[in-house]
Amino acid sequence: MDGVNARPGGRSARIRRSVLDATIGALLENGYDGLGFRDIAATADVSEATLYRRWGNITNLVADAVGEFALDENPIPDTGVLETDLRHLLHSVVTLVERPDVQRLLRGVMALSSDDGTVVAARRAFWHSRFERGAAIVRRAIERGEIPGDVDPGEVIEMLVGASYTRALLTERRTDERMLERSVHAALAMCDAPGL
Amino acid sequence: MDGVNARPGGRSARIRRSVLDATIGALLENGYDGLGFRDIAATADVSEATLYRRWGNITNLVADAVGEFALDENPIPDTGVLETDLRHLLHSVVTLVERPDVQRLLRGVMALSSDDGTVVAARRAFWHSRFERGAAIVRRAIERGEIPGDVDPGEVIEMLVGASYTRALLTERRTDERMLERSVHAALAMCDAPGL
Repeated sequence: MDGVNARPGGRSARIRRSVLDATIGALLENGYDGLGFRDIAATADVSEATLYRRWGNITNLVADAVGEFALDENPIPDTGVLETDLRHLLHSVVTLVERPDVQRLLRGVMALSSDDGTVVAARRAFWHSRFERGAAIVRRAIERGEIPGDVDPGEVIEMLVGASYTRALLTERRTDERMLERSVHAALAMCDAPGL
Repeated sequence: MDGVNARPGGRSARIRRSVLDATIGALLENGYDGLGFRDIAATADVSEATLYRRWGNITNLVADAVGEFALDENPIPDTGVLETDLRHLLHSVVTLVERPDVQRLLRGVMALSSDDGTVVAARRAFWHSRFERGAAIVRRAIERGEIPGDVDPGEVIEMLVGASYTRALLTERRTDERMLERSVHAALAMCDAPGL
């Protein structure tokens, strides 16, 4: 699979891009159920054999595609101030997760559950990639000396996005400005006295 | 369906109980995929015709069963003090959602997504029932005059459980005491100055 990226501007990269786009398109439109190599190959105009050779199975492909999607759609802010970064990040997360097509994709990822370890690994990789990228904001604040070094960056992001994910996926209410501000403050509170 | 409850101690109630138990058992063991009237009827020792007559389709039955499950497994504390109630509630929610079988059930409920409106309604009814029962804690605090009357009870519960649900279902980390205390404080902060 690494070979796919060998020549970033080359044919390999173009094929990969087109397959990942086709996969995300199918996920956004119909969710994970019934997703298969055949339809994706047709949309991306490549052979099924190419997909088998590069990704092995549909779960690897989905994991690759949603990882890329998280990257494209959710730029990580870097304003130099933790509070501002957290506010920008939450704002962009909320905008993204309130899209009905993205909710369909996230529900599909969340449901990935089976005795097949690669399926569970794909689900974990997806969320890990999303939360790790957010955690970079907190790590930069630690490096700047803005917050103590023993703050757990992942924990801050979990607190930041927890109520908004809960609204988007469980209670299905929109996150308003007030909830957004409260979430930013709850996340900052995780940084103030980490030893508490 | 209301007729099922007409005689709480009677045969109707016993059948309902046994069917709901069989449904939850199947959901906890295998999740939502492939769940059907036939297996549930066999486990509960009733005819498939009974299930069709009482619930119409599998989605109505699942919605009824998971609603009942939420009720049984998650008693709502009433200590007379909001902070203590919130702490007890979050503690019991965390204990519940960290059970692997419950996670399988929740993932199944979250994934309920289709063009069939009854499926989406079942998903909403499940989460609505869970959050509404938690919100009773906040409503009692309003009635006691402990917090202002314009606090949104649902919002307080979303903030209370958001980070823990995020950990249980997305990042798959356990909620420790520190995260639990921070979540209680974040929820209380939603009550202090609701007009902020």
